[in-house]
Amino acid sequence: MNSQKIPDIIIGRLPIYLRALQRLSEKGVQTTSSQELGRIVGISAAQIRKDISQFGEFGKQGTGYSIPFLIEKLSNILNVDRVWEVVIVGTGDIGRALANYDGFADRGFLVSMVFDNDPDKVGQKAGDFEILDTANMVEKIKERKIKVAMLTVPATSAQEATDQLVRAGVKAILNYAPISLNVPEDVNVQYIDPVTHLQRMTYYL
Amino acid sequence: MNSQKIPDIIIGRLPIYLRALQRLSEKGVQTTSSQELGRIVGISAAQIRKDISQFGEFGKQGTGYSIPFLIEKLSNILNVDRVWEVVIVGTGDIGRALANYDGFADRGFLVSMVFDNDPDKVGQKAGDFEILDTANMVEKIKERKIKVAMLTVPATSAQEATDQLVRAGVKAILNYAPISLNVPEDVNVQYIDPVTHLQRMTYYL
Repeated sequence: MNSQKIPDIIIGRLPIYLRALQRLSEKGVQTTSSQELGRIVGISAAQIRKDISQFGEFGKQGTGYSIPFLIEKLSNILNVDRVWEVVIVGTGDIGRALANYDGFADRGFLVSMVFDNDPDKVGQKAGDFEILDTANMVEKIKERKIKVAMLTVPATSAQEATDQLVRAGVKAILNYAPISLNVPEDVNVQYIDPVTHLQRMTYYL
Repeated sequence: MNSQKIPDIIIGRLPIYLRALQRLSEKGVQTTSSQELGRIVGISAAQIRKDISQFGEFGKQGTGYSIPFLIEKLSNILNVDRVWEVVIVGTGDIGRALANYDGFADRGFLVSMVFDNDPDKVGQKAGDFEILDTANMVEKIKERKIKVAMLTVPATSAQEATDQLVRAGVKAILNYAPISLNVPEDVNVQYIDPVTHLQRMTYYL
């Protein structure tokens, strides 16, 4: 297997499969088929088989997929068979919602620090976290070798905060600010902007 | 132009272009090029020209794009040259954050009602909105002919709430619940799950 060559669009579907498998597993289900998985996630069985077969032969003709085995394999491929420390930058409504969210821990992520640049917020709490000053952010992230960040600052501060995260060695940024970020080639950004998602759907209305 | 045939992946990029153009416009910039736009959004100039040319000849060789004109065209293509009423279902942290968010109005959307099924929350406020009972949701959405919803309920209630939205005539659902939804073919769903976005990036770490 040469993971370098697998299209990002396929990588993007693996977390969806993993999420569905984990939900089946929670219900006590032990095996599944590409047909069943396809019905759950709304993707064709053929596409699912093709996507998964990029990484090896994980299912058996006729008996389908062992769910614990496939969860293990997908977690391994996506590097979430470990826990990634994550920082949150920005403690507006969304930053606080993420700081409170209890859905990270069992899916590979642990929020470890929360930052804001507002002196009135620094030292206060966001969820269980003391809000730290972004002035010390680069140093603190470097110290703990954190590679993943969620950015929930206003659009006007997003690039500046990104530059700090890049200097700190962060390689994956989940950006909630409604603006495109400039980052070096070895840094990944994923975007969450409800409006762009909504506009993609209104096209069809 | 035959809009039926344009791939969804292209449609998905148009809101990104529109967002960047609106930001340039707010700064008072009147014209841009595919090169400049490409640097801002991190997409190649050739790809941008190709995407935009699917819909007509909107730029001029040598002088580039008129920003107000391109904003008008893209808004028209994405059907956001009007305002869509949107309902929010679920008033946890994310639902409340969305109810408070002031970034919808100038990009084609207006939150008009907020629902929850928790009797302790119904009648309380989320942002400026009185929280309404989901028991009356289908009727209220039908009455106002609302087509767009944001779903921020727990995963365990998400399919049931979706079925209600579909019965009410909603055709576009932005789903924040970490679960795949089953909907009829004429209903669009977009997914926002921070963990799937993060996992897509940890693959590369």
